[in-house]
Amino acid sequence: MVLLAGGVGGAKLAHGLQTHLAYRLTVIVNTGDDLERHGLLVCPDHDTVMYTLAGIDSRELGWGIEGETFAAAEMLARYGEETWFRLGDRDLASHIVRTRGLAAGLRLTEVLLGMQQAMGLPVRILPMTDDPVRTEVRTDDGWLDFQTYFVRLHQAPDVRELRYRGIDDARVTPEVLDALGRAGVIVIGPSNPFLSIAPILGVPGMREAVSAARARGTPVAAVSGIVGGRAIKGPADRILGSLGHEVSAMGVARYYADLVDLFVVDSVDAALEPEIRSLGLEVLVTDTIMADDAARARVAASVLESMASR
Amino acid sequence: MVLLAGGVGGAKLAHGLQTHLAYRLTVIVNTGDDLERHGLLVCPDHDTVMYTLAGIDSRELGWGIEGETFAAAEMLARYGEETWFRLGDRDLASHIVRTRGLAAGLRLTEVLLGMQQAMGLPVRILPMTDDPVRTEVRTDDGWLDFQTYFVRLHQAPDVRELRYRGIDDARVTPEVLDALGRAGVIVIGPSNPFLSIAPILGVPGMREAVSAARARGTPVAAVSGIVGGRAIKGPADRILGSLGHEVSAMGVARYYADLVDLFVVDSVDAALEPEIRSLGLEVLVTDTIMADDAARARVAASVLESMASR
Repeated sequence: MVLLAGGVGGAKLAHGLQTHLAYRLTVIVNTGDDLERHGLLVCPDHDTVMYTLAGIDSRELGWGIEGETFAAAEMLARYGEETWFRLGDRDLASHIVRTRGLAAGLRLTEVLLGMQQAMGLPVRILPMTDDPVRTEVRTDDGWLDFQTYFVRLHQAPDVRELRYRGIDDARVTPEVLDALGRAGVIVIGPSNPFLSIAPILGVPGMREAVSAARARGTPVAAVSGIVGGRAIKGPADRILGSLGHEVSAMGVARYYADLVDLFVVDSVDAALEPEIRSLGLEVLVTDTIMADDAARARVAASVLESMASR
Repeated sequence: MVLLAGGVGGAKLAHGLQTHLAYRLTVIVNTGDDLERHGLLVCPDHDTVMYTLAGIDSRELGWGIEGETFAAAEMLARYGEETWFRLGDRDLASHIVRTRGLAAGLRLTEVLLGMQQAMGLPVRILPMTDDPVRTEVRTDDGWLDFQTYFVRLHQAPDVRELRYRGIDDARVTPEVLDALGRAGVIVIGPSNPFLSIAPILGVPGMREAVSAARARGTPVAAVSGIVGGRAIKGPADRILGSLGHEVSAMGVARYYADLVDLFVVDSVDAALEPEIRSLGLEVLVTDTIMADDAARARVAASVLESMASR
């Protein structure tokens, strides 16, 4: 199966799915959050998913690597480098290896697959494209690059508009097309619809490939990252609101309505079921909070069973 | 004044000289030991001198930065990168900043001066050239790049021949010419004559610039790194022997005889004084072992006084 995912929420569901599917799982990951720091290419969503699947993610921090240290960042600061996007020492190794691979002429997909293999992952994590796409948000102070908004300004400004620089020239990769072509099930993770999923679906050919799979009978599901009217993590709720959507799982369901067959909402949003069904979607109501490994596996199992029993 | 230096021995004398001279000191440093690791440019001799002058060198290890950690190196190893040339986390920041500066189009000299300024150094450390020069050693198993011989093989093979790849195309920099042109005194540090000093003097125009300064009345001194017939650190004694030189301070004195006015030997080699004088050199006999800050300052003071009283 194929999971479309951004960072932390998608990574947790990917981890749960990995428990059941192992090598049969392929994750297509957002690269709109990628950035260059200190001359190195950083792919936050890919690395979050990879570290989570490798079991080395920091549960305490909610990002980065368990037991991470920041000695290099301190020294970089001493050299006058901007370090508001703080890179850990272990994490830095990922960016070094990636940057070197690209400099050697490999495609991003090839470099990332090599890194995953080195980490011992059974799952494949594919970047949505090999071409650079950079998410930018318009605030009341103008356009900002994504990580300036997300990390430097702590998502404080209201988001008025989003754009994905480079996306019109981006191409969907052979690996992504192949994975979507073979997928028995496609799931959109509980990631931010605008920041994580929209750039993936915005790569020319991606939405068409998902629709084509669906037309061939491959069911498509989406898991709401909005629970009880609030984002589990991050600014998705505020962005839904500032972009004029309903701030609820219903707002997310409407956003995905023309692309998916099944919509998964948390038990606290059970009352929304009739309204979501009225959009023509099937609904799975289940506990979606993935606080530990058992919960990750359970949510994944619920989604898989629900898809299989259609 | 100008000091020609390689790594640890030169760094210690530079540190002693800095105590007395501060901004009046310029170090010209060997770059023949430089190498690329993980896509990053590493300049071991420059960084050893810089860390030493910044007071952050590890006295315990004799290389690298005090309290250094190796988290990134462990992760790089996990990615399958060769890590026999082990880079510390703080040290890695230097290579990242340097590589980025060069990628931005700066000359090596400019990048290194910026790094030194960030470290708060009063002294300027100039690379011998902005062009890539790579020392290679011929052993009984063929030619090896320098760090393979030095670090990976722990200097075990006998050195039969040396070459400095790229040196014929290397150019002496305006900064180096300016420093040598203004120098009141030029000192060759107690560094390895073949591995550290020969590449510096081998840059086309360097030896001529030193000779021209000397012709204008600037005294030139060299400090022996061979004490009691043995290298204070490193393989200088074995290389002297395998290249057919006398393994003693006398062998070093002969090697520098046509370039220097004053030769500095350790007190244990006082008996060599007449023989060294017979080469037409003045001789300073003094304790040259720089075990602590006080000793570094004392050796530096002895050399400076001896030059000033000529």
